Amino acid sequence: MSDPLQSWNDGPVKASIVEFVARVTNRGSSDHVPPAERIAVFDNDGTLWCEQPLQVQVFFALDRMKHLARKDPSLAQRQPFKAFLEHDLKTIASLGKRGAFEFAFMTHAGISEEGFDALAHAWLEEALHPKLGRLFKRCVFQPQIELMNYLRDNGFKTFIVSGGGIDLIRAVSEEAYSIPREQVIGSSLKTRVDTQNGILTLIKLSELGTFDDREVKVENIGLHIGRRPIFAFGNSDGDLAMMRYTLAGPGSRLALLLHHDDAAREFAYDRDFKLSPLSEALDKAASYGVRVVSMKRDWGKVFI
Amino acid sequence: MSDPLQSWNDGPVKASIVEFVARVTNRGSSDHVPPAERIAVFDNDGTLWCEQPLQVQVFFALDRMKHLARKDPSLAQRQPFKAFLEHDLKTIASLGKRGAFEFAFMTHAGISEEGFDALAHAWLEEALHPKLGRLFKRCVFQPQIELMNYLRDNGFKTFIVSGGGIDLIRAVSEEAYSIPREQVIGSSLKTRVDTQNGILTLIKLSELGTFDDREVKVENIGLHIGRRPIFAFGNSDGDLAMMRYTLAGPGSRLALLLHHDDAAREFAYDRDFKLSPLSEALDKAASYGVRVVSMKRDWGKVFI
Repeated sequence: MSDPLQSWNDGPVKASIVEFVARVTNRGSSDHVPPAERIAVFDNDGTLWCEQPLQVQVFFALDRMKHLARKDPSLAQRQPFKAFLEHDLKTIASLGKRGAFEFAFMTHAGISEEGFDALAHAWLEEALHPKLGRLFKRCVFQPQIELMNYLRDNGFKTFIVSGGGIDLIRAVSEEAYSIPREQVIGSSLKTRVDTQNGILTLIKLSELGTFDDREVKVENIGLHIGRRPIFAFGNSDGDLAMMRYTLAGPGSRLALLLHHDDAAREFAYDRDFKLSPLSEALDKAASYGVRVVSMKRDWGKVFI
Repeated sequence: MSDPLQSWNDGPVKASIVEFVARVTNRGSSDHVPPAERIAVFDNDGTLWCEQPLQVQVFFALDRMKHLARKDPSLAQRQPFKAFLEHDLKTIASLGKRGAFEFAFMTHAGISEEGFDALAHAWLEEALHPKLGRLFKRCVFQPQIELMNYLRDNGFKTFIVSGGGIDLIRAVSEEAYSIPREQVIGSSLKTRVDTQNGILTLIKLSELGTFDDREVKVENIGLHIGRRPIFAFGNSDGDLAMMRYTLAGPGSRLALLLHHDDAAREFAYDRDFKLSPLSEALDKAASYGVRVVSMKRDWGKVFI
């Protein structure tokens, strides 16, 4: 039988995944978990696909801002529009994750759900990563695809729990990850039901509904899933609460933290990445029982 | 082959269901819908189970209030506690749906998610409907069980979209409806991550997160599902927006409205039920393309 995790190098991390899945699926084990409770949550940016030098979400909004600036050239002189339009990564990063993301989301206000989905699909069809030279939607990590398939083949239900915008991820989640739209949780603007082009639809408002980061990820897991996950995978301090929440339940559980330490094949970064730092989670991983995954050491292949 | 909808009487309503399902599942039809997009949404109170003389949610909170009043007898003198404790249905109904539900939800503040689930399960195991003489959790409509099974057998994914509290429904949805917890959308209190009894958990706050009624049902469908349903079933004005939203998309769609007109087998009510009136939806059903289901005429059997 071929190895379902062939892009994972042999070692303690891969072994911990295989042992965990064996324990919770073994009907004879005291750690057996019924399929309905086999909930696995994955962060998206930096966990399932590349988030350097900026999250895909930010690049998408940046192109949206160019579109808006063509209609209203005065925007180009205003900050933080100016920083986005000029690809001034340093100024964008100085806004911090929430600041940059919220500003990005606001450029979607007034768009209908169908309109946004069409925009997102069109952009994802052709937008190229500036350094990797591949489509953003192809900047997906092969070991994670194998891991999600492996979990699903073992009766797990896989969810994305991301700080990124819920609807941008939904536009790519089925194609990229085989995760249906309804299993995506993310940040979102509030919406209003209204008629647009004669059709009753949902329109995005310019007010944030939820910024799905840190403790809010746990609250949104409660709201959307209503079960405590038994498996969590993240890569930043924003995922620590979700990992701790996952590990705090009874029985066998696994939380993994991806450390981007592979400048040769992807990027090497952690504490200084202002748009999603990995610092506290790295320091406390051992004490919380979170297992650190080294991209360099544990992944035989990085991209699909 | 036995009839999957055997508790539905033959007639235009049953025929419309069978024809709709045939159209959207027929690969050769221009109305074919891929399985991932076969989203069916059901209201809960009065649609899947009985909501008379009060919603199950309200009876649950009423018993919770008795518990609170034993700890603090002064509550019994305060309104609307007094009305709940004395089963003063008229005063409770005078609060309206949102007023009565919000007050009911507030009695759950401070409870952890695991604690609430345990309370709800224990209550549902023994709480009896005051008039029907059966467990509340058995006050479920047999034709709807058949309908949901029929839809699922045809590749649909079934969701509950209820004004009732999300966690009470989740405590019964798998057993009663074969609907997993993560496919339940409802009203909810905000939550906070905190440590209780040494475990990191979610605690219910005394602030409403969402009151899932009318247009808010549509907003929450967008948030939780991220797809426009092709099938909707409701029984009150609170479901009208969700039905109209369902019908407004392209292709073949079906929205059904249950009219409780069967005093002999269940209850007969509509415009005057203050906790969930059916008035506008009844008047406008025909003009919106919503099909009215008569319990008396269309259902051969009512309860499971």
